[in-house]
Amino acid sequence: MSNVRVAGVGLTPFGSTPERTGRDLFAEASIKAFEDSGVPRDDVDALLYGNFMGELSEHQGHQGPLMAEAAGIQAPATRYESACASSGAAVRDAVMRVRNGEDDVVLVGGAERMTNLGTAGATESLAIAADDLWEVRAGTTFPGAYALMAQAYFDEFGGEHEDLAHIAVKNHENALTNDKAQYQRAIEVADVLEAPQVSSPLGLYDACPISDGAAAVVLTSEEYADEHDLEAPVAITGTGQGGDRMALHDREHLARSPAAREAGAEAYADAGVDATDVDLAEVHDCFTIAEVLALEALDLEPIGEGITAARDGRTTADGETPINLSGGLKAKGHPVGATGASQIAEVAKLLAGTHPNSSAVEEATTGVAHNAGGTVASATVHVLEVVE
Amino acid sequence: MSNVRVAGVGLTPFGSTPERTGRDLFAEASIKAFEDSGVPRDDVDALLYGNFMGELSEHQGHQGPLMAEAAGIQAPATRYESACASSGAAVRDAVMRVRNGEDDVVLVGGAERMTNLGTAGATESLAIAADDLWEVRAGTTFPGAYALMAQAYFDEFGGEHEDLAHIAVKNHENALTNDKAQYQRAIEVADVLEAPQVSSPLGLYDACPISDGAAAVVLTSEEYADEHDLEAPVAITGTGQGGDRMALHDREHLARSPAAREAGAEAYADAGVDATDVDLAEVHDCFTIAEVLALEALDLEPIGEGITAARDGRTTADGETPINLSGGLKAKGHPVGATGASQIAEVAKLLAGTHPNSSAVEEATTGVAHNAGGTVASATVHVLEVVE
Repeated sequence: MSNVRVAGVGLTPFGSTPERTGRDLFAEASIKAFEDSGVPRDDVDALLYGNFMGELSEHQGHQGPLMAEAAGIQAPATRYESACASSGAAVRDAVMRVRNGEDDVVLVGGAERMTNLGTAGATESLAIAADDLWEVRAGTTFPGAYALMAQAYFDEFGGEHEDLAHIAVKNHENALTNDKAQYQRAIEVADVLEAPQVSSPLGLYDACPISDGAAAVVLTSEEYADEHDLEAPVAITGTGQGGDRMALHDREHLARSPAAREAGAEAYADAGVDATDVDLAEVHDCFTIAEVLALEALDLEPIGEGITAARDGRTTADGETPINLSGGLKAKGHPVGATGASQIAEVAKLLAGTHPNSSAVEEATTGVAHNAGGTVASATVHVLEVVE
Repeated sequence: MSNVRVAGVGLTPFGSTPERTGRDLFAEASIKAFEDSGVPRDDVDALLYGNFMGELSEHQGHQGPLMAEAAGIQAPATRYESACASSGAAVRDAVMRVRNGEDDVVLVGGAERMTNLGTAGATESLAIAADDLWEVRAGTTFPGAYALMAQAYFDEFGGEHEDLAHIAVKNHENALTNDKAQYQRAIEVADVLEAPQVSSPLGLYDACPISDGAAAVVLTSEEYADEHDLEAPVAITGTGQGGDRMALHDREHLARSPAAREAGAEAYADAGVDATDVDLAEVHDCFTIAEVLALEALDLEPIGEGITAARDGRTTADGETPINLSGGLKAKGHPVGATGASQIAEVAKLLAGTHPNSSAVEEATTGVAHNAGGTVASATVHVLEVVE
């Protein structure tokens, strides 16, 4: 079994560019990834591509071959859709293919065009990640669903909005050096607490923005990387996936994410590491409470204690295990189909020492990327390690 | 590397059931597949699920976990979308996972709900499989696109509508014994020629219907099948995938399908067979001309000669290589996301001797399933063989 090397990564700026098509965005990301990798396009064996709502935002399905064309490659292409974990799911299959020798070089990534729908249109389109029959028709939106999860957490373990506010403040702080981030501006706890309420207890600054953007990653086998003298010091050494009941009301606990726990445990075992080895992570903070649930599901915090991690400085840039040094979904932005692949890109750069925030994690050898769909009805976790 | 056994298959009736949800359809197909296989649900490691237009027909994305729930399994689930080749793409990854030891048991399948959209709505929704920017906005629909391909074929190689009519007649004839088929009635060449024109040279009887339905297949490793004494005499021994430019106008030839040729060549090589070994095939006859192009791409007919295959009896039930003994998309129906998996189910039953039409192919040991997306911008091909 071959190690799977991250040979190159490319990201568009994340933000509001309603005039840009999905193919335009993915073309930019893939150009950057190929440049970064030094891998010629002709060597690509497959494109695995994540997209969530192209049918609604661009009247466009069947994006696999469309995006292969945008990337300038002639290779079979498949689109993966697992809501906000779409490109995480694509990365997982890409890792399996390369490690098993099915493919030597895979282009994996994703894109999403959202802001052209407007805020109401995007919110309605995002709702297709929930159960239309039993949740959406009853009025559930994702801010509402995550507010229920936050309230359930507070009820079971304690905590308050101010704890969550520190997560938003931390992630905005981390994004200051990230020139791809949608929000490169510092905020304070008071800003979060005074922001308009979205769905109690969550306010506007507890939510990630609606974003356009794309991410692309060139993965190669170890043999290919060695043979071509690639600068590819980081490998994806573990992959895991979990699933849960679709609708919140069918879950045993609203304030836990068993799908992410399952994915994390599988990825750790696959890589031969455990949570104590993790030096940094990018986790799926679509809402501030989601970062808390992710930390606990990944065993980076004990159940019921993740709520204080940012406030007490355990997950800040100067903390023991910095979380979302990219700015996270909260400040970097969340173009849904691009997010999972963008997390791989960020962790790889942080570990390789080529990220603006690498100085915060100079000795780091092990990082984690956690991507979640819906209210974590699906989740993928990947472990990345410095291997040379 | 383990052989990948087809342990059980399940299909809903294909037809017009606009009141049934996708989850209802997939639940039925999966119940049947589990019953057929004797595999307990708890042993399933993953669901790989194909769906094409759920966002438009049911306001429902993120169908992976939803369908895992419908199937009564607790396992990670991913949705694959490659237009009309969606569940073909899912089968391909399922085969890779099982043969490489990532999973022992995979539930793979797909479903589509279409008729609730009405004919105009379904046609518009199907168009998202073409290039929205360069084809759909210019007025292209799939009947129009395949009509262009048919006309280009006639121009280059000769042939006439009556040749195509024999394909429709053959596939309706084959469907007479298929109690899951949407159309269980014989037609004659005159019916095809006299049917209302859809897009010259194609008429109404050259097109597959709009359909609701689901298909599910339980795949296991050889070791699992042996250990559990499963009745699973057929294996998927070859998998291949190809891609092409998305828009017809970017192709070198309108009347050839290089993506299917690439997929076929890869699948044959993977299985260690060639076209002369193929005893029967299910090919993607969304329009009559599509069957011709498929036969030629799979090297079952020389380029330019596939047009006479049905008319001259080479592909009829009593011919040398029977094609679409299930009735094909044309008569069995084409619930898009279900089609690729349903082809695997049909070929497996034909080879196992448990299909109503198995008597036509009593000595058969090798079958092929060919699934295509859009105007064959994507294609998957699988080879199935009797292994015990």
